[in-house]
This record gives sequence, structure tokens and C-alpha cells, in this order.
Amino acid sequence: MSTAITNIGELVSWDPERPVRADAALVIEDGVVAWVGAARDVPAADEVLDAAGGAVIPGFVDSHTHLVFAGDRSAEFAARMAGEPYAAGGIRTTVAATRAAGAAELTRLAGARIAELHAQGTTTVEIKSGYGLDVKTESLLLEVAVGLTDETTFLGAHVVPAGWDDDDYVALVTGEMLTRCAPHAKWVDVFCETGAFDAAQARTVLLAGMAAGLLPRVHANQLGFGPGVQLACELGAAAADHCTYLSDADVSALADSGVVAGLLPGVEFSTRHPYPDARRLLAAGVRVAIATDCNPGTSYTSSMPFCVALAVREMGLTPTEALYAATAGGAASLRREDVGHLRPGARADLVILDAPSHVHLAYRPGVPLVRRVLIAGR
Amino acid sequence: MSTAITNIGELVSWDPERPVRADAALVIEDGVVAWVGAARDVPAADEVLDAAGGAVIPGFVDSHTHLVFAGDRSAEFAARMAGEPYAAGGIRTTVAATRAAGAAELTRLAGARIAELHAQGTTTVEIKSGYGLDVKTESLLLEVAVGLTDETTFLGAHVVPAGWDDDDYVALVTGEMLTRCAPHAKWVDVFCETGAFDAAQARTVLLAGMAAGLLPRVHANQLGFGPGVQLACELGAAAADHCTYLSDADVSALADSGVVAGLLPGVEFSTRHPYPDARRLLAAGVRVAIATDCNPGTSYTSSMPFCVALAVREMGLTPTEALYAATAGGAASLRREDVGHLRPGARADLVILDAPSHVHLAYRPGVPLVRRVLIAGR
Repeated sequence: MSTAITNIGELVSWDPERPVRADAALVIEDGVVAWVGAARDVPAADEVLDAAGGAVIPGFVDSHTHLVFAGDRSAEFAARMAGEPYAAGGIRTTVAATRAAGAAELTRLAGARIAELHAQGTTTVEIKSGYGLDVKTESLLLEVAVGLTDETTFLGAHVVPAGWDDDDYVALVTGEMLTRCAPHAKWVDVFCETGAFDAAQARTVLLAGMAAGLLPRVHANQLGFGPGVQLACELGAAAADHCTYLSDADVSALADSGVVAGLLPGVEFSTRHPYPDARRLLAAGVRVAIATDCNPGTSYTSSMPFCVALAVREMGLTPTEALYAATAGGAASLRREDVGHLRPGARADLVILDAPSHVHLAYRPGVPLVRRVLIAGR
Repeated sequence: MSTAITNIGELVSWDPERPVRADAALVIEDGVVAWVGAARDVPAADEVLDAAGGAVIPGFVDSHTHLVFAGDRSAEFAARMAGEPYAAGGIRTTVAATRAAGAAELTRLAGARIAELHAQGTTTVEIKSGYGLDVKTESLLLEVAVGLTDETTFLGAHVVPAGWDDDDYVALVTGEMLTRCAPHAKWVDVFCETGAFDAAQARTVLLAGMAAGLLPRVHANQLGFGPGVQLACELGAAAADHCTYLSDADVSALADSGVVAGLLPGVEFSTRHPYPDARRLLAAGVRVAIATDCNPGTSYTSSMPFCVALAVREMGLTPTEALYAATAGGAASLRREDVGHLRPGARADLVILDAPSHVHLAYRPGVPLVRRVLIAGR
């Protein structure tokens, strides 16, 4: 089964020769991009999909979400907008609601959120645990997540639950909880931050996860300067996410190590923290991803287009750089070569926009411009 | 024909007694809100519309748009994001494209934009001319606009077209152009700004429009401090829109005169100008509206939810104040009492959200939360 996409306003393939081009066509075969070239040369296919002049871009790769949870923190959001500061402890509110929900309810809620992401053009999504904080609930969250994505992350070390001693909780996370969770996870993550886990605790968590076969990624430097980024670089993590407060040494370490800096501008939007300076990172040679961090506390957006617009307005990226970070950057953050681009061999994950150019994602902020989404060609 | 809306998560009616309430129902009769009260008291109706726990809010009143135009300025946008400053002269780019388009093309484009606004919850929209700048095209733009809304605005004085002397152009606007345009317009507007029209020219334009039976509104104080707001207050305009740079005397004049300050945060988003301080205006007793300013140069968003989220993040409004400004505030700006609220007697223009509370419009920025839109009950 092959499909030719024609009448494309602009094709963003990230082909090194012609990353963005007009007058292009694309052919999908068995769910994979089989051919990209000039519209006049398009080979015959079983069916034709008319893009009606819309831009065709790779599906968004959202490399950082917390989609499996219950409860609502809109009141906390409104209070913060009225002047209350954000503290990492707000996570415990969601933990209580999540523990109280059953498997069926959590599956229904997460499934609805996945549908919402897909409708906005996201075709690959990472999902973390972290709202259980006990063995039973953390493993349940990951069981729900593996039904929705291949990119699951064990984040038992999200915050220390109420009533626990720090070291006792780290022992649980690296012991029984890891044993139960590791079979459902690809990644291990830790929130390395004042109010969450310090560098030594975070290192212990990541090393235990790596020993269990998981790949490391880190929540780093969100609320202030700290050791998270350096730890991520030391351990060869795939990504250091947030990167809101970076020293020059942190920037150098990211550039030298190849660790992807995951920028989550929805968080800064919803907490009024300063936005990270993506320009500074690109200038230093750091690889950058943009993700939503979709979660009920600090960034309850599921919209990658919104995050792309913020990256342009607030973080100094061009529209093209921002889209690259939201597709190819996310793929690098997840160490995936089959998504985030539309070169031959890629999985045919793509979005047809209701706009002639990808620039419109930032030029028309807030407007639902995603007209059609294909995942593996369907 | 009557319809009862039940299972409402939260009803925002702006009833002075209970502006936002839970456990409510609403009945529509012949396109008008006939009854609002407790869910348990809902009277029988011909049909029932189940809101499925979603919030019901008044439809958005977008009191400032420039929807009738042709052409694309995404390249100018991208250049500005890369550091080039905005200047009012960019309007002339759109004028050239608009003059080159025919009536059929302009009607098709504007109709598609109206559909886009409606899908995002806007049920009343003001539309300005201003991309013609000659008698024939300005009157054509208003003929297209009157087919789409009752709220049409003659903005011949948007900018002085290339090759014209200022005073000659003001004479044209207040002469033959006004004569041809006034039959299709409710409002007269002028861009009072350095690079566009000074206070004396703007006063001449507005007084001529008023003499022809049009009601005044003003583009004021967008790019710097200036005389626009004072002029709006002097002439009893319905609205002074932009209000990005206000002196204390401007704020006092707005409060004393009752002129509505129209805030257009999409412009600041897309030009990187500082956002107006809505908190300062409310504290002084100024009435505030939020609108998109949907236009291809400085704010090509059509999303009132996006503007509400910006108003909360960037302008200091609470989610409730921002929604009020985007509904009742817009209605005040257009001197409409039948829209912008859901008290009995209102036109049944309403939105059912895919969220339990209107707070989610800011709590979930960028996410398409508009599930259903009714205009006059349909």
C-alpha cells in the first residue's frame, strides 16, 4: 500500500540538503517514508492525498510529559497567577488524587490526553510515572503508560512523599519500586532540585536505574542553579530537561557531552519563571529539544504548536529552529532515529497544516493549525 | 423551540448575584436565554443539550479585528522575531495584496477566517476596513464585512498610502471615501500614532465620521505615548484600543470618561512590545476589553482563548477578569447589551468548554478547549 502526498505548500523533511522546500511531494509505503522529491517527479502510488497547499511537517516528538494522573490544580494555578510562588511540593496534591483513582479511571484520563495531543500534531510522546510514589501506584502508572507509548519513564524519584525520610524513600525507589517498575520502562528519571532530590540522591537513583537496564534522563535546573545538568552530563544521560537556570559551565558541559537540553516553555508560561535562553544554547553547540511537560501543576498544556510559538517569542529561536527542536530535537532526546524527520526510511509520522508554511506555527499563535495527522502513514 | 442545557460543570453568566456558579442549568427559547437557575429547578424544554460536565461561558466578543485582507506577512514576522523593529508602514504590504485581490477572493478569505474564529468560540466580531486606502477598495472591504457581521468599522485612516500627501489623504477619507463607506459601517476608526495620523488629523477623521452618523473608536497609544487616548475620551469614543503606553493622565481620562480600553495582547506577543498593565487599569476603575486584533502584520491570531491566557500570564488579570474582559468587556466596547453575558434576555451565544471551569482557558494555554459553540441558540 502506497500513498503519494501532493499539492504540498512546503515540505519540512530536515533533509540536510533541503531541510525546507517548496514544490515537493512525498510517498509513503507500508507506513514508512519511501520517497521525497520534486512534485513533478512523484512516482505512481496506490492513492493520492491532496495537501491542498498546506505545509507538511514531521509529527511533533513530545519528549517530556506526565500524562498519567488524576485531579485538577486549576485553583493552585489561579493562586500562583495572583502572586503565590511555585514550590515542588505541589506535586503531592496530584499524588493524593492519583492514588485515589483506579486503573480504569487513570487509563481513561490518559487516553483522552493522548487523543488531545495527537489532534495537535504530536505523534511520539514520552510519558513519566511520578504521581504514585509508592510501589503499587508507580507500577500501575507505568502499566497504563506502556499501553499508550514505547517511551515510558520511571520517575519514582519525583518528590519525597509526605511522612517519608529522604534516604528511606531513595532506598525504596532503588529497591522494590525499581524492581516492579523497570519491566514497564525504557528510561529512569529524577527531579534533581532543592525541595526534591540532591545530587547524591539523584546519582544513586539514576545509577540504580541504569543497573536495571534503564537509560537515564534528568529533571535539572528548573527552579534555580543546581547540580542536575552536571550530573546528567557525568552519567551520559540522553537529556537534561528544564535548563531554566544554567551557568556557563553547565552550558559547556551540555555542549561537550552531547546531552540534549530539553526546554519546556509551557512551564515558564504557567509559573512566570524566566524563560531559558535557547539562543545561548544553540550558539554554544548544545542540542535542544522543546517539549510540553504536560502536567497538572506547572504546565497543563498539551500543545506543541503553542510551545513552538513560545520558543520563538520568548526563547530566541527562529520558527525553523523551534520546529526542529520540537521534532528532530525531541527525537534526539529520546534517541530515536525513525521519527522527528521525513527523510526516506522515517516512520511516516507527519502533520498537514492548515497553513502554507511552518512559520505560521509561531506567526499564528494559539490558532489550531493542525489539519491532518498521520502516524505510520495512517 | 426551547433547549435546556444540563450537566453544566460551571456556568458563567455574569449575573451580578452569581457571576460564576456550579449546579446550574440554562434554557434557551427562540435563540434567547430564557431562564438560568439551579440544575434541580430546570423547567421542561423541547430538547436537552448535555454539557457533559463542561463549563458554559458566554461566546467571546472580539471587538477589534481586520479580517478582510489578502496576502501573507510571515516573512516579515520571522524577520521581526530575529530582531527587526515593527513600523506602522508594514500595513502597505497588505494594502498592495488586498487591492490586487478581487471581491470573490476577499469574501472567501474573510469567510474562512470567520469560520476559524467561530470554531474557537467567538460569536460576535468587529471587522475593520483599512487595507484598501482608496475609495473603491475601502468600500469593497466594508461590503464584504457587512456580509459577515453587524459590527463594521470604517478605517480608511489606517495609514497614509504611498505617494499621498497627508492632508490630501485626510480630505479623501473625510470626503468621497466616507460618503461611499458610511452606508456599510457602524463605526469610524483612526490609527492615531507616529507614522500614521497625528491628533489633529485623527480628530478631523473622527468628527467627519460622526457627522455621517458613525460612532467613534480609536487605535491609540500602541507604539509609544501619544494623544490617541485623550482624543478618544474627548470625543466620547466607545473604545481606545491598544493602550500599550499610558500616562497617569491617560488612565484617569479613561476612568472618568467610561471609554473602554481595548487590550490586544496578541500584538505584544507578535511584536515583543511590552504588554499593557491591565491591573493598573482595573485598579483605576477603567473598563477593559480583550480582543485579538486579528491581522496579518502584528497579530495573526484569531484565538480569544489564547488572548485570555496571555492576559492572565502577562497583563495581571485573574482568569475570571480576563474572561469578563473577553466577553462583557468586548460587548461594552461595541455598546452591545445583548451579548457578552448569559443573563435572561441575552442572545444565546455561548460556548461549551472541554473543561470543567473557565480557569482552564488560562491553565491550559494553547489547547483547543472549545467543544461546542451556539450562536442565537444554534
